[in-house]
Amino acid sequence: MKEDVKLLSVLSKKNVTPPPIWLMRQAGRYLPEYRALRAKAGSFWTMCMSPEMAKEITLQPIQRFGFDSAILFSDILTIPYALGLDVVFEESIGPTLTPITTTDALRRDEKEWARRLSPAYETLRMVRAELDSQTALLGFAGAPWTLATYMAEGKGSSDQRAAKLWGYNDPQGFARLLDILGDCVALHLVRQLDAGADAVQLFDSWASGLPEREFADWVIAPTKRIVEKVRAVKPDAKIIGFPRATTLAGYEAYANETGVDAVSIDTAVPPRWAAKILGKRVAVQGNLDPIALIAGGDALAAAVDRIVDAFEGVPFIFNLGHGILPETPVEHVAQLIACVRSSA
Amino acid sequence: MKEDVKLLSVLSKKNVTPPPIWLMRQAGRYLPEYRALRAKAGSFWTMCMSPEMAKEITLQPIQRFGFDSAILFSDILTIPYALGLDVVFEESIGPTLTPITTTDALRRDEKEWARRLSPAYETLRMVRAELDSQTALLGFAGAPWTLATYMAEGKGSSDQRAAKLWGYNDPQGFARLLDILGDCVALHLVRQLDAGADAVQLFDSWASGLPEREFADWVIAPTKRIVEKVRAVKPDAKIIGFPRATTLAGYEAYANETGVDAVSIDTAVPPRWAAKILGKRVAVQGNLDPIALIAGGDALAAAVDRIVDAFEGVPFIFNLGHGILPETPVEHVAQLIACVRSSA
Repeated sequence: MKEDVKLLSVLSKKNVTPPPIWLMRQAGRYLPEYRALRAKAGSFWTMCMSPEMAKEITLQPIQRFGFDSAILFSDILTIPYALGLDVVFEESIGPTLTPITTTDALRRDEKEWARRLSPAYETLRMVRAELDSQTALLGFAGAPWTLATYMAEGKGSSDQRAAKLWGYNDPQGFARLLDILGDCVALHLVRQLDAGADAVQLFDSWASGLPEREFADWVIAPTKRIVEKVRAVKPDAKIIGFPRATTLAGYEAYANETGVDAVSIDTAVPPRWAAKILGKRVAVQGNLDPIALIAGGDALAAAVDRIVDAFEGVPFIFNLGHGILPETPVEHVAQLIACVRSSA
Repeated sequence: MKEDVKLLSVLSKKNVTPPPIWLMRQAGRYLPEYRALRAKAGSFWTMCMSPEMAKEITLQPIQRFGFDSAILFSDILTIPYALGLDVVFEESIGPTLTPITTTDALRRDEKEWARRLSPAYETLRMVRAELDSQTALLGFAGAPWTLATYMAEGKGSSDQRAAKLWGYNDPQGFARLLDILGDCVALHLVRQLDAGADAVQLFDSWASGLPEREFADWVIAPTKRIVEKVRAVKPDAKIIGFPRATTLAGYEAYANETGVDAVSIDTAVPPRWAAKILGKRVAVQGNLDPIALIAGGDALAAAVDRIVDAFEGVPFIFNLGHGILPETPVEHVAQLIACVRSSA
């Protein structure tokens, strides 16, 4: 454990003031240098799968803003790809894949998984070699439930209908799917840590809207299983979990039961509640409204103050409550960082 | 107050066993008789604005299933229409309207509001005349925040960006918008009660994703203002509020502060939490996952049992956590009603 790296200190439950800051999707379309590379590369997937380009993109926001952590430039759908599914990124409609209704077509070959996922590891090694020692490096993966929503629907879905129907109608088959996904995700996290990631984040971006029972079965249990599998190989692995937009009761159960070191919270979670309830058990990360970051000015400054004040004395990482939006002015990001770093 | 009507007894905080049941969007596309009328009418808006058709549609689910309440067939965008905006319903993209950035264009003429909203009142009078005395009749309106999201964006929006930006960048102008909307909504609720509605529901369908402060300013305060305005005219008015997918803290504050008689909860809210915390203060309505209703079978039966059991001893109305989906098999609705009515 590199204790001098602020983000890692927080993940070891130390209170750091001012808090470290990074932003979900910080390597992305709001950056002119990203858009320039994107125009050259042709496709998003090409950039994910080309370590040289992915390295450059991963480092862009660090070079411009000096965030406290870099995060691997990749996509959560590398896991379905590793399992043998074809993933197609189309410009205007987002990623699509052939929907599945059983687990029959999924490859169960760890060597093949690692081979298909290897661009991520190569990227991490290259980033690690160029990153200064004060900046953390995060790997990540999609969590099984969220991956299942894409695999069942064949694309992103606003109500996760296909995955829910699979789970309601065929609980055993769906549990098998979540297990296979969990195996692949655990391998991917371990390999990313091997390749130089200091910590990893699990994105359960579609955790909202699940009834309590299904949240327990489809989000908490698979996450706990992954954390246990990763820790069996790497007992000190630091893991952040983001069950986006679950209920407060869902966040609390997730913090208490999965074994993650930190919980990332969405925009709507009251910061004082999170500091008091989640902060007893885990470090907390979040939760500025990405739209307040587009707005900038007084609204941004006030929102930042409310969050920073609420987490005083709690191990805390400043972040957004959701990914940064392409329309965000870069000067507002600079304003945000200045606000956070001048706080406390 | 008609105390023999189950739904109204619940709204008077009486525990009724088995609980009354109705479903959001129960008059809708899952019904073959609705689709037949829709094909004849040509457009959704035509049906909303034609009392004879709207009456027929309002009564269809009562005739087929004997729900405990009918709800006016109409649309939340009748309010922006009353304020002078053009609303266009297009088949595949949903409703659109010309987005506004100031309140300048909005009419402030109550007589004109009532004239433009009059098809709803005519529909309610016609339904009332045909409805049996055991079945409640609900009116409704969209809540100011949710209406503002449509008016600022010009259409439905997944992240409510335009309305949030308006609110962040121009808090006073946005407060003015919410006040005008609140005036029109309050008038519409009072007139619906005059026309024969037994109670009314306020739909804040886009309450999710708001930070705590903005939820207080843009959801709770405008709702409280409407409740007060309605009660100033009709002290016994029964009002259900649905701040869909806010946090548990948001639901609790809404139940405690707005003055509504009942709170409708979304699919993700733990029923036992709602029974214990919200049930202290208000009646509770909800919250079956509409996708469990599509699934049917054991998953549906188990989900219904969990909800009914949790609300034992609490004034409770069985409903969905969100509107019924067009793909829902009608026989599953019959199964649901049988499950609920055979409970306890």
